[in-house]
Amino acid sequence: MKINNIEHIGIAVENLEASIEYYEKVLGLECYSTEVIADQKVKTAFFKLGNTKIELLESTDSESSIAKFIEKKGAGLHHIAFAVTDVDKSLEEAAAKGIKLIDEHSRKGAEGLKIGFLHPKSTGGVLTEFCGK
Amino acid sequence: MKINNIEHIGIAVENLEASIEYYEKVLGLECYSTEVIADQKVKTAFFKLGNTKIELLESTDSESSIAKFIEKKGAGLHHIAFAVTDVDKSLEEAAAKGIKLIDEHSRKGAEGLKIGFLHPKSTGGVLTEFCGK
Repeated sequence: MKINNIEHIGIAVENLEASIEYYEKVLGLECYSTEVIADQKVKTAFFKLGNTKIELLESTDSESSIAKFIEKKGAGLHHIAFAVTDVDKSLEEAAAKGIKLIDEHSRKGAEGLKIGFLHPKSTGGVLTEFCGK
Repeated sequence: MKINNIEHIGIAVENLEASIEYYEKVLGLECYSTEVIADQKVKTAFFKLGNTKIELLESTDSESSIAKFIEKKGAGLHHIAFAVTDVDKSLEEAAAKGIKLIDEHSRKGAEGLKIGFLHPKSTGGVLTEFCGK
């Protein structure tokens, strides 16, 4: 597989507004977009940094994976997303190399991109996403 | 402050060799350097991805901050490092905005860079590093 760049770093936050303020006022970054992703039960905010992004994720439901993550580990770094040319092919390749998948096939994620996750049990505890058009 | 790019993503690993193999054989990245950082009690491996990097960190001592992190949260995403022009000035600016610092002044980190950490209590649980020449 060919990873082109880190598409984004996902960060689980308790409060999106307060977190946006920290990234803007303290770090000087600019939030260029917010989005509600209903099927993931999150609202998100995006910041560009060169050819990668920071994605803040606040849960909108106590049963969401972000809510469960915060309950278990606390707010903080949540996942890393790699930009790949073909998400489905990359998932297949990873599976062929013995990696456990969360998503057998790509599904629709934020910003209209195709996404698919590898299971952290196979990746040294790092929730890992492939992301592409 | 002016953040130029994400300098690297730090990942706490149980076993550096096995992790390098995953990033190389499964994800197709190339480890371009390994380094022992004695005063941080870690050995590290670096992978380039555009203008950012992945830094794998394995503890060399059960009292290291990486060992304690893994004990508490498990292996996985550990910190995010932002490239800034002036690390000391950026630490000062963050402190002036109410952010708790781990490092009041920059110290020497991997790859000969100056580094300084913000406290995760002030940054939504994200261990945050400033990094520069």
